[in-house]
Amino acid sequence: MAQMMKAAVFVEPGRIEIDERQVPNIGPNDALIRITTTTICGTDVHILKGEYPVEKGLIVGHEPVGVIEKLGSSVTGYREGQRVIAGAICPSFTSYACQDGCSAQDGGHGGHGYKPMGGWRFGNTIDGAQAEYLVVPDAQANLAPVPDGLSDEQVLMCPDIMSTGFAGAEAAGIRIGDSVAVFAQGPIGLCATAGARLRGAGMIIAVDGVDERLTMAKQLGADVTLDFRKVDVVDEILKLTGGRGVDASIEALGLQSTFEAALRVIKPGGTLSSLGVYSEDLHIPLGAFAAGLGDHKIITSLCPGGKERMRRLMQMTDSGRVDLGPMVTHHYALDDIAEAYDLFSHQRDGVLKVAIRPGG
Amino acid sequence: MAQMMKAAVFVEPGRIEIDERQVPNIGPNDALIRITTTTICGTDVHILKGEYPVEKGLIVGHEPVGVIEKLGSSVTGYREGQRVIAGAICPSFTSYACQDGCSAQDGGHGGHGYKPMGGWRFGNTIDGAQAEYLVVPDAQANLAPVPDGLSDEQVLMCPDIMSTGFAGAEAAGIRIGDSVAVFAQGPIGLCATAGARLRGAGMIIAVDGVDERLTMAKQLGADVTLDFRKVDVVDEILKLTGGRGVDASIEALGLQSTFEAALRVIKPGGTLSSLGVYSEDLHIPLGAFAAGLGDHKIITSLCPGGKERMRRLMQMTDSGRVDLGPMVTHHYALDDIAEAYDLFSHQRDGVLKVAIRPGG
Amino acid sequence: MAQMMKAAVFVEPGRIEIDERQVPNIGPNDALIRITTTTICGTDVHILKGEYPVEKGLIVGHEPVGVIEKLGSSVTGYREGQRVIAGAICPSFTSYACQDGCSAQDGGHGGHGYKPMGGWRFGNTIDGAQAEYLVVPDAQANLAPVPDGLSDEQVLMCPDIMSTGFAGAEAAGIRIGDSVAVFAQGPIGLCATAGARLRGAGMIIAVDGVDERLTMAKQLGADVTLDFRKVDVVDEILKLTGGRGVDASIEALGLQSTFEAALRVIKPGGTLSSLGVYSEDLHIPLGAFAAGLGDHKIITSLCPGGKERMRRLMQMTDSGRVDLGPMVTHHYALDDIAEAYDLFSHQRDGVLKVAIRPGG
Amino acid sequence: MAQMMKAAVFVEPGRIEIDERQVPNIGPNDALIRITTTTICGTDVHILKGEYPVEKGLIVGHEPVGVIEKLGSSVTGYREGQRVIAGAICPSFTSYACQDGCSAQDGGHGGHGYKPMGGWRFGNTIDGAQAEYLVVPDAQANLAPVPDGLSDEQVLMCPDIMSTGFAGAEAAGIRIGDSVAVFAQGPIGLCATAGARLRGAGMIIAVDGVDERLTMAKQLGADVTLDFRKVDVVDEILKLTGGRGVDASIEALGLQSTFEAALRVIKPGGTLSSLGVYSEDLHIPLGAFAAGLGDHKIITSLCPGGKERMRRLMQMTDSGRVDLGPMVTHHYALDDIAEAYDLFSHQRDGVLKVAIRPGG
Repeated sequence: MAQMMKAAVFVEPGRIEIDERQVPNIGPNDALIRITTTTICGTDVHILKGEYPVEKGLIVGHEPVGVIEKLGSSVTGYREGQRVIAGAICPSFTSYACQDGCSAQDGGHGGHGYKPMGGWRFGNTIDGAQAEYLVVPDAQANLAPVPDGLSDEQVLMCPDIMSTGFAGAEAAGIRIGDSVAVFAQGPIGLCATAGARLRGAGMIIAVDGVDERLTMAKQLGADVTLDFRKVDVVDEILKLTGGRGVDASIEALGLQSTFEAALRVIKPGGTLSSLGVYSEDLHIPLGAFAAGLGDHKIITSLCPGGKERMRRLMQMTDSGRVDLGPMVTHHYALDDIAEAYDLFSHQRDGVLKVAIRPGG
Repeated sequence: MAQMMKAAVFVEPGRIEIDERQVPNIGPNDALIRITTTTICGTDVHILKGEYPVEKGLIVGHEPVGVIEKLGSSVTGYREGQRVIAGAICPSFTSYACQDGCSAQDGGHGGHGYKPMGGWRFGNTIDGAQAEYLVVPDAQANLAPVPDGLSDEQVLMCPDIMSTGFAGAEAAGIRIGDSVAVFAQGPIGLCATAGARLRGAGMIIAVDGVDERLTMAKQLGADVTLDFRKVDVVDEILKLTGGRGVDASIEALGLQSTFEAALRVIKPGGTLSSLGVYSEDLHIPLGAFAAGLGDHKIITSLCPGGKERMRRLMQMTDSGRVDLGPMVTHHYALDDIAEAYDLFSHQRDGVLKVAIRPGG
Repeated sequence: MAQMMKAAVFVEPGRIEIDERQVPNIGPNDALIRITTTTICGTDVHILKGEYPVEKGLIVGHEPVGVIEKLGSSVTGYREGQRVIAGAICPSFTSYACQDGCSAQDGGHGGHGYKPMGGWRFGNTIDGAQAEYLVVPDAQANLAPVPDGLSDEQVLMCPDIMSTGFAGAEAAGIRIGDSVAVFAQGPIGLCATAGARLRGAGMIIAVDGVDERLTMAKQLGADVTLDFRKVDVVDEILKLTGGRGVDASIEALGLQSTFEAALRVIKPGGTLSSLGVYSEDLHIPLGAFAAGLGDHKIITSLCPGGKERMRRLMQMTDSGRVDLGPMVTHHYALDDIAEAYDLFSHQRDGVLKVAIRPGG
Repeated sequence: MAQMMKAAVFVEPGRIEIDERQVPNIGPNDALIRITTTTICGTDVHILKGEYPVEKGLIVGHEPVGVIEKLGSSVTGYREGQRVIAGAICPSFTSYACQDGCSAQDGGHGGHGYKPMGGWRFGNTIDGAQAEYLVVPDAQANLAPVPDGLSDEQVLMCPDIMSTGFAGAEAAGIRIGDSVAVFAQGPIGLCATAGARLRGAGMIIAVDGVDERLTMAKQLGADVTLDFRKVDVVDEILKLTGGRGVDASIEALGLQSTFEAALRVIKPGGTLSSLGVYSEDLHIPLGAFAAGLGDHKIITSLCPGGKERMRRLMQMTDSGRVDLGPMVTHHYALDDIAEAYDLFSHQRDGVLKVAIRPGG
């Protein structure tokens, strides 16, 4: 008789609920992971609200921390019982797109191998991590062992938030001494702030409208924080840079207003690194774009995945470079995940990230 | 008594006329060039029409080929009588912006050193090249000797068109085997097509709606030409790449329609390299942008200047890598420049570029 | 009863001979290829002479062109009977090394995932391509379909020579207008010359001591050829660049003398891109290295593999960018491969590359 | 009557002594700086010992902190009395080499514009900074105003040590999570350690044989320190990385032994970033170099100069990213500089850097 498990399932817009499912079987290149901790992402809230479409009945969630329960027959170099994480983006690494440096846009093995956001599978095109068990496809490329001594919560940000935020700093092409402005200090923006610090920025300006987030931004590396409720952020950033503009800005929210401000504050020759998930067409003001003659760069990044990326992020945690532990503000059992969604989606009680434990 | 010269002067919107001026004096870091050949650029037409504002009375033009008439006291390593060109963009190379890799955005020596398009001085913020004589500021950085054996017309594209078009290919980050689509095959688009070929693209698709330009595109390196009057260009490019999209697209016109098409045809992870001078706000469709998650790059480039850039471009001409001679379709004496503007601005008679000779 | 095949086997130093073997079985991630054409590489000659050690009994060769005979159960997106090639280097693409950008140094799935030259498996650590059949491991990542209309010989250089030579030009960081010197015009040096041309070099200087090779170098893109038997190559290159030195040099032989000359001819700030397989310690003269203060780069490259790389190289062939057909100077049946080795290793009769056909 | 000044002059090998000189005149592009603080570099010790040849009678020193005394007629944007520094390397920024990205190899305005180490002029080819006054050539490009609130000692490392050490980390191409080994923890090695930290390295291993230096390395960012007197450094580093090797190593001494160890500890595909000034030919062991097939990079860097670089480094100091103050272990009046040379060249008393004050 098949073993059963609990899982958070997208029922219909407005409803993500705990359901019973069979623990899945695995193929030769898969691994089955018993989830010990997972979390909820802003994208999951978009799914809940029906703003990002997924199939009804899909198990949601894409940030797994767990233990290897079973390995496919072709997967080597791991052992059952081993603690692992997998990236939110879990590409095959063998497709044309992956070999071409676009692993997050992995289209798999049919046709030309590209698909927009195709590397994002968990809780999008296959069952996800908010469950007792998770199948990791292409496990050889995606299982990343957790170093001894690191807790679940210490690595819980690696699969998505940390990888995405750091990617924003990496795509910004930061050099030693750069000035960088980061728009919005939610979990991803905070990680972008930390990432800018790690790459050697000399002045980091963090923008938000929530006091706790601005405080956290300072802890994670911002030199200056600006509250958009109180100041004209574009003016202020131009003042702080003596009229020059910042070398790079990072957009971490997904609105026209932050995108546009992020464009207005960069120097001629500067880079706008965009992380936000937009829900409307964007608009580029002619003046902010120097009519196309300003040597501007606009770069978007999707969360990098794969076991090497995860290894590197855990190394940064292990060596104490960053401490994202304080970002986990609330804890829930998997059974109570509906409550966690309610809190997280309404950003109540100073929530940044919630830890969800299937084991309770 | 001051020596007099003829020059094409912006009188008011709609009027660029030949006027008499004194041959200018020079400072210690300047050089005076006697112009032997120059040309008219699309930007000059914008000035003529009053779409790009410059001061009334300014001498226009930014593509000088000539002979050194006089050297400032601090300029060394050149001799009077030497044949030279200077880039359309003639930066100081000593400002913060220049040392920071943004020489086309050179703001000079006051304040922070940045100014959008600040490296473009000839015929914009100082007197330009459509005249018998031209003062080249920061001459040490900007005078580039013409190799023996190259004619004026062979190097006439170097100061602007060739440098800009090649920059479009360079910013596109082309790798060996890339597919590249180039939107619009005017002089700059044609040079972008040639540039894509020079960087190792494996399939180059050139788009325009003028037969002669599509024919010229083939000569300069396009594998496929598409006439937007006859086919849906976006569909066709996706078909040509098996549904994948091109690795990079180059926009060389400055319209929303070409910008948008250039975005729609790139693969996830692809680059839109933009050269056009836009005259309206731009619009980014959400779908074409994968909601910000497509690992897209949008990069704008202004024409690189300086003597080293000019040296490299002339080397490419000298070694026969490209032959832009056929782009010069018409010839005029400086006295007849109004007629040349008329032809060029109306794109009559298959005109691509006109050669203007102050000496007649 | 097991099907038998013929294969060229390393018996002992000095002896590579045709032997009978069972056609191998395949695992779920493998493919079995029926070889239609293969060739002999300089490295195979090192193996023959016992200078590069491999296990006795190994089937040699790493340049396969063939037809899919059988696909592993996990390999999708291909069909039996399809014409394919695979790179000489056939990495897993899933190891830490591969995800880290070092796929040629792939150490597979045990331990840390790195191994020097570990991506080179065919005819090195597993049976190779000079046989009637070949097992391609990690087939999903390594099988590259041959475009219709391209002959075996037209794609025969892709698996190794073309990929390696082009990599030399890519690692050299060539920019438009660069001057480049390529030392030695054997098959790899010739491809490096072609690669330098494809990346936009403005002056390419090819060095060798064999007339036919210098002639071929001109055909593939060299502007100047230098015969080291007749001139002091270092002096001559410095003269050709006005005393400045070249922007980049490419070493394609593997001797101290060529390595050293390649270092002496680069400008301060220049790059030495090294492709040669050295058989002795190297020596860097203090003066040629500016005592460590010359902003020099020395970069070695091993042949890039994988299906995306192969796709790109075949695209370059398909679009007529390069024609390496003339490099195949001789043809042999697999049965006569000993004769082919004899000719190739002694570089008799103007041989560049030989085509070996198992089907006769 | 000419004003006189004191200066440290190279008399002959073994003798650098205080002498009287006329305060120099300046040209239109120069500035005269009154030195308030300077220091002694390892290179100065090579000059003292006659190991690096300079003209007898030359004023030595290349690390100026001071006040603008007089500006050339063409220099704008500064004021007399302003506190400034200038880089040890003070390029023209207008030569071909400078525009080509090789400003430290600036050959000035004759010929082709390249010269090995040509950007190093102070105390090498023109009079240097160990004096009461210093002429800064190409002042427009090289004068960098000191931010209010920073002391002389806080910016004293910027002109050379900090710029060089950080360049070592920059050339190493460090990515987030990299492991990096830094060989030798003298002033430059310590700055390389700090630089590796600033670029996001996840494990930094510092090597030296002096306790105080290893302690300082920990303060500046090393995770692990290795004393070469006590352990086999190569073995230990391979152990620390699980047999993989580090992503990058930085050589900061200039010996065959450290160069070779730095090569042996990098992973296949790794980078050796070399900062040391070598005094003998170097030797590359075949095995450590994977016979040329290991995708290795060896990159040498000379200290980057120019006002933008200095601005960035001072910004890093101003924002508290690094504190190199503790590196200044001793203070001397200019009159006592012979004593300072004696201490510094014998590395007595735990000396790292000495501050020399012409004003006493």
